[in-house]
Amino acid sequence: MADQTTLETWQQRIDVSPFQRWLGLRVTEVDEGRMCVSLPWKENLVSNPNPPTVHGGILASVIDLLGLYSVLTTGSLSIATVDLRVDYHRPAGPGDMMAEANIIKLGSKVSTAETKVFDASGKLLASGRGVYLMAG
Amino acid sequence: MADQTTLETWQQRIDVSPFQRWLGLRVTEVDEGRMCVSLPWKENLVSNPNPPTVHGGILASVIDLLGLYSVLTTGSLSIATVDLRVDYHRPAGPGDMMAEANIIKLGSKVSTAETKVFDASGKLLASGRGVYLMAG
Amino acid sequence: MADQTTLETWQQRIDVSPFQRWLGLRVTEVDEGRMCVSLPWKENLVSNPNPPTVHGGILASVIDLLGLYSVLTTGSLSIATVDLRVDYHRPAGPGDMMAEANIIKLGSKVSTAETKVFDASGKLLASGRGVYLMAG
Amino acid sequence: MADQTTLETWQQRIDVSPFQRWLGLRVTEVDEGRMCVSLPWKENLVSNPNPPTVHGGILASVIDLLGLYSVLTTGSLSIATVDLRVDYHRPAGPGDMMAEANIIKLGSKVSTAETKVFDASGKLLASGRGVYLMAG
Repeated sequence: MADQTTLETWQQRIDVSPFQRWLGLRVTEVDEGRMCVSLPWKENLVSNPNPPTVHGGILASVIDLLGLYSVLTTGSLSIATVDLRVDYHRPAGPGDMMAEANIIKLGSKVSTAETKVFDASGKLLASGRGVYLMAG
Repeated sequence: MADQTTLETWQQRIDVSPFQRWLGLRVTEVDEGRMCVSLPWKENLVSNPNPPTVHGGILASVIDLLGLYSVLTTGSLSIATVDLRVDYHRPAGPGDMMAEANIIKLGSKVSTAETKVFDASGKLLASGRGVYLMAG
Repeated sequence: MADQTTLETWQQRIDVSPFQRWLGLRVTEVDEGRMCVSLPWKENLVSNPNPPTVHGGILASVIDLLGLYSVLTTGSLSIATVDLRVDYHRPAGPGDMMAEANIIKLGSKVSTAETKVFDASGKLLASGRGVYLMAG
Repeated sequence: MADQTTLETWQQRIDVSPFQRWLGLRVTEVDEGRMCVSLPWKENLVSNPNPPTVHGGILASVIDLLGLYSVLTTGSLSIATVDLRVDYHRPAGPGDMMAEANIIKLGSKVSTAETKVFDASGKLLASGRGVYLMAG
């Protein structure tokens, strides 16, 4: 379990990115090989307004970036996503979302992480995997 | 080749989505089973600011949505992405981008489309595929 | 936990397929939404003989088919894979393998399952997901 | 266009693998960044016998291996697949198949190739991509 200082450190790293700041992500948990964030609802995330659902690209963005950060929690360095795979399970209606990423395989050349995105009631909205190129 | 009215009609459909409006996509070509858009650079798309590169989630968003629209150009109806796969080929530095989507297989239950994103000089930045659930 | 009769019933269903018989899969566990098999080593599975490792296509085959069977354990019917994604984590050297599939999302139109393949010591060799088209 | 000696050289490389020999692949075309093979029908490839269709794992195997060989045609070395994505477009009934692989991006760390599998009449049965880890 991460203390407040650790959460704030990772929050600052996420907020280095203008797009990630725009998303409004809040780091809620950090362990070695694992990170959780919350993603507040806002109208600009919407794909189809009637009824309003979150754009698949937003969910893909969270899965891409959170998987990378779960790799970074190990102290290993990666700066590039090799590829991303996203499964969409349910429409993501209004309400805050939560996401959790875990490393599947930490490697020296590439690493793989899996991320799940849930709605406020804990229903799985989307999940997927990223492969990340390791530095050095 | 689409005339101006056709382009404007598809532009309006894309602009129904707040997130797609935020992206600032411009429809540049439409044929049956194919659509092209331009994506103007802006700072809010940036992942790492030093040096600035477009966030992988932005490229994933374009691949997701443009593949869906290429399916819609056939007159068939789809409203949901089943899954999305994105390969990242090069860092996407400052400058406008272009994307092109083509249907690989139009089906009655699911359809598959492939989308490529290029920089202003025509270099391939990212490419990928979406599978879309067909309505009815 | 499945009794012997249940295991044999599923074994027979798997053995309906000539390729699956050729693979030599043995059903070891069945629950609703979950199936495990063992895959004995044989030389015909080998990709590079020096040193011998199992071909990636064999691992992909197991991930494809076991995910489908995990869906079938629910009583729902699916006869086609929409798409398959496989991550290769380690070379698969000589020795029997085990695989476990679990449903991620059982849907009315499509379902998603995740399968992991392990070596005899429990190391993760490959893992991945299939999306399956539901019948009816 | 490759001459007969070139085709035979690549055939021998493919036939180093027991599983690839078992598949019965024949190299039909080789260019830099591109390779084509034929895959003869045989009963052991079958998934469901009634009516007989080729197992999805067989198609995945061809997509995995042929993408790798298309990378090798450039003289670059890769010995491992990072991940594989396969889309299934149509049931693959009895009859010989043909497959064509092309490099999408040749990289120094990873390369991406796309492979399409056709039936004897040229219909697209399956297609997909592999990411391959480059040596050195």
